[in-house]
Amino acid sequence: MAKESNISMPVIRRLPRYYRFLYDLKENGVTRISSRELSQRMGLTASQIRQDLNCFGGFGQQGYGYMVNQLYEEIGRILGMHCPTKAILLGVGNLGKAVVNHMNFASRGFQLVGLFDGNVALEGQTLGELPIRSNNELEQFCQQEHPEMAVLCIPKEAAPHLVERLVACGIKAFWNFSHYDIAYDHPEVIVENVHMGDSLMTLSYLMTQKDL
Amino acid sequence: MAKESNISMPVIRRLPRYYRFLYDLKENGVTRISSRELSQRMGLTASQIRQDLNCFGGFGQQGYGYMVNQLYEEIGRILGMHCPTKAILLGVGNLGKAVVNHMNFASRGFQLVGLFDGNVALEGQTLGELPIRSNNELEQFCQQEHPEMAVLCIPKEAAPHLVERLVACGIKAFWNFSHYDIAYDHPEVIVENVHMGDSLMTLSYLMTQKDL
Repeated sequence: MAKESNISMPVIRRLPRYYRFLYDLKENGVTRISSRELSQRMGLTASQIRQDLNCFGGFGQQGYGYMVNQLYEEIGRILGMHCPTKAILLGVGNLGKAVVNHMNFASRGFQLVGLFDGNVALEGQTLGELPIRSNNELEQFCQQEHPEMAVLCIPKEAAPHLVERLVACGIKAFWNFSHYDIAYDHPEVIVENVHMGDSLMTLSYLMTQKDL
Repeated sequence: MAKESNISMPVIRRLPRYYRFLYDLKENGVTRISSRELSQRMGLTASQIRQDLNCFGGFGQQGYGYMVNQLYEEIGRILGMHCPTKAILLGVGNLGKAVVNHMNFASRGFQLVGLFDGNVALEGQTLGELPIRSNNELEQFCQQEHPEMAVLCIPKEAAPHLVERLVACGIKAFWNFSHYDIAYDHPEVIVENVHMGDSLMTLSYLMTQKDL
């Protein structure tokens, strides 16, 4: 296994997609697949697939293809699925609720351990088997549980102050739905921004192009 | 203005980001910006920015920079913001509710005109000022309103049959949260998949790498 440093972000961003397709293949009882078959299924070229997977060390064997289960496990290991990180979520509005109810954190490398909201009226309610806590409890909770990742489902205006507190509490990474530019103010933390609006505008672009 | 065909997807996917940053600059009263300043703000290189924007025809002037408002308007035009497309949304569960409440369709090139759900108990309720309709009304509604885009917030299992019906109803593009691989069965339609789990796994990867 090669050391997976200096891999470009586009390659990294394709890994979860490989992981999903391999899971489906595994579920359908497929044990071996050629890069050509995998490429047809995923809409990539076979050489792209070989190149991507070579970045992480040689998986396949020439003329033999990839062992589905082995490749699935190995990509899972690279993605950190074997060693879940504790995470908390802030902001239990519609978006926060949808994230808690729809996202299987456990199968994506995280363990969701706490929910927080600024609205004290929500305190004591539960969501997905976790109690909703007041933001006032953040520091104490983090001292006890040591979460390393925070999901931000809060408005942009509320984010700068809360991020400041979270970083002081030992949070090292953010899954950020808030549109606040965390990385600009905190270059030391890891940030994955979710801008669903960008995806919608891309769709608009693609439709406009097809009309031309 | 150059014709914007054959532009690579990575460049296209950066356009909404430029659009967001330019909007913020505009709101903050900035009228002119150099590619160097824009690059610092966006975390890209200045040459990357010049290269990206050159794909769409020469915007800036050497030594003078970009006019913020003009560039904002032009990128908006390229993204199809000037001519909104009618859209419907299927599946008004937690995820559908979050999308309707959080997503400003109007400022992203779409006009949300109808909500549908398979659960007849929801019929007649409203969300974001739109009534929730039964899936049984799909055909009639589409005949009258001619939506061209559908947002799928439905489970994977329900998707193949509904997509079949929607394509027959004249839907040409999908914003797809369902994890059903539409493009594989319907290569003729435009699909923008949203896989939030991929984003979460990427974050897991980045955290794993930093630990190494």
